[in-house]
Amino acid sequence: METVVVTGVAGFIGSNLADHLLAKGYKVLGLDNFSTGKTKFLESANNHPNFKLIVCDLSDINSFKDSLSGYDCVFHLAANADVRFGIEHPNKDLEQNTIVTFNVLEAMRANNITKIIFSSTGSVYGESLIIPTPEDCPMPIQTSLYGASKLAAESMIQAYCEGFNFQSWIFRFVSVLGERYIHGHVYDFYDKLSKNPNSLSILGNGHQTKSYIYVSDCIEAMILGVEKANRKVNIINLGTPETIEVFDSIKIITEFMDINPKIIPQDSIRGWVGDNPMIFLDTTKMNSFGWQPRVSIRDGIIKTLKWLRSNEWIFVEFEKNK
Amino acid sequence: METVVVTGVAGFIGSNLADHLLAKGYKVLGLDNFSTGKTKFLESANNHPNFKLIVCDLSDINSFKDSLSGYDCVFHLAANADVRFGIEHPNKDLEQNTIVTFNVLEAMRANNITKIIFSSTGSVYGESLIIPTPEDCPMPIQTSLYGASKLAAESMIQAYCEGFNFQSWIFRFVSVLGERYIHGHVYDFYDKLSKNPNSLSILGNGHQTKSYIYVSDCIEAMILGVEKANRKVNIINLGTPETIEVFDSIKIITEFMDINPKIIPQDSIRGWVGDNPMIFLDTTKMNSFGWQPRVSIRDGIIKTLKWLRSNEWIFVEFEKNK
Repeated sequence: METVVVTGVAGFIGSNLADHLLAKGYKVLGLDNFSTGKTKFLESANNHPNFKLIVCDLSDINSFKDSLSGYDCVFHLAANADVRFGIEHPNKDLEQNTIVTFNVLEAMRANNITKIIFSSTGSVYGESLIIPTPEDCPMPIQTSLYGASKLAAESMIQAYCEGFNFQSWIFRFVSVLGERYIHGHVYDFYDKLSKNPNSLSILGNGHQTKSYIYVSDCIEAMILGVEKANRKVNIINLGTPETIEVFDSIKIITEFMDINPKIIPQDSIRGWVGDNPMIFLDTTKMNSFGWQPRVSIRDGIIKTLKWLRSNEWIFVEFEKNK
Repeated sequence: METVVVTGVAGFIGSNLADHLLAKGYKVLGLDNFSTGKTKFLESANNHPNFKLIVCDLSDINSFKDSLSGYDCVFHLAANADVRFGIEHPNKDLEQNTIVTFNVLEAMRANNITKIIFSSTGSVYGESLIIPTPEDCPMPIQTSLYGASKLAAESMIQAYCEGFNFQSWIFRFVSVLGERYIHGHVYDFYDKLSKNPNSLSILGNGHQTKSYIYVSDCIEAMILGVEKANRKVNIINLGTPETIEVFDSIKIITEFMDINPKIIPQDSIRGWVGDNPMIFLDTTKMNSFGWQPRVSIRDGIIKTLKWLRSNEWIFVEFEKNK
């Protein structure tokens, strides 16, 4: 049995990954500071004999370094994922994404753990001129502090592979949807429309074109990618072969909610500073390992909406933390 | 008259840049913590009425933030430049290159300064497969913590351009040679051969192929690049149209010193972990602004050797600081 550390284990992807790994027979150590993670997401994991949770802050290496002893690899998912709010607190991406990744790498080195799986983002491509964007597209220009901090983390991981014989799997995701999804456009729209079903103001002109992957597709891809990709540094895009415009995803949401609000767009091709009007990743590399997503964007949105409808406590909790 | 901040002003490139800018009529505020900078390098600048020096540590933003008030732009040159020793102290590149750059950006933002000129490095290309390497080559894999930390800094600067309407000129240098050059292979070889003219052990097999630019060519290019390049983010390679093998540069050094040592290479294509066996940058973009280097690699090495011979105090000082 393999033993695995998951950082950010109480988050959206982290908790789903932990459940998945436990079901496959892995022993899982989960780390989280519960700044955005939820205890409720670990209800199932916490009842599993192979799961251990440590509440710690990854920005303090001494709070978790020793606990990694004896594990085989680290899935480093903990991050500030608020891509939209980078310019409101520019230090947050640096601290929670770049510096925390450095701490994770150093804690791994102290424990002779050399395998790291990292959740990066298609945002590192900035506004790529090549669409769908392949992993080896021309060096991009960063347009968000989030993308910059993730590229910085990727770069350090790569340097550790060269300098300290680490092996890495860097997954560049499109946005992920599914159960336990607690931020992003489907969440925001559902929340706003629950409060006011008559109108919806949206960020940008509504024609921003995005791609979304369903969380279990994403997790299966990560696990398969680690099995199949054997270079020192493995950089792998994860996304779906489809895209969807913001307007169309609103249509799916309003149909699901059975409402017909007035949609109020802005006169801007970007939803916010650093928003990418077109995200679509070339997943040829991941597909070559025999992977295809099982869930369409439409079905992923609907699954997400069903989960949100059955878990309205999440909106209450969010309001409390505001 | 333009007013300019130069970080790392007591360093090799910083002090030469300050002298150059002062001669051109700029008012210069220099910042340095003298961790590797030398007071002697500022002898000329310190006698100039338009020069002001503040001794401060850029890792503490409060030590310099207020002093930037009223300046037009920042040449951010301060850095840990020890590309070779990254794996001996992995935190140093993160702290002195990435985090310090963030502090500089934040200090600029606090003072409404939006123009930054940044000394990056060809090391961000890792081991590029395209040689000579253009600015928009395929996204590279980082092979050194130094390269990773500089790419992280570049990325933050780019995100500040998008998020806070900064304008940036990011220069990716090959190695720089010339007066006040105090680390790197010419320095090391001259130092070792002065102590033992009979033999010289070198790092790597001697066939590593590098490109070097002479410091005044580099400075003229930076100043011209800032004048001519007008995008929000301007990324510009700086190098020479020549390359030289380590063996050939040793030949120039031994001829200059009039000695004939036994050269002892290693059986490795890399001089150290993360060393790039072939650095050669495509400078078409910089050339398109009407710039060409005036000094050949050979002449740059000889100028450097002449300066080292007249400034042997530098070796004494280095020994003291060991």
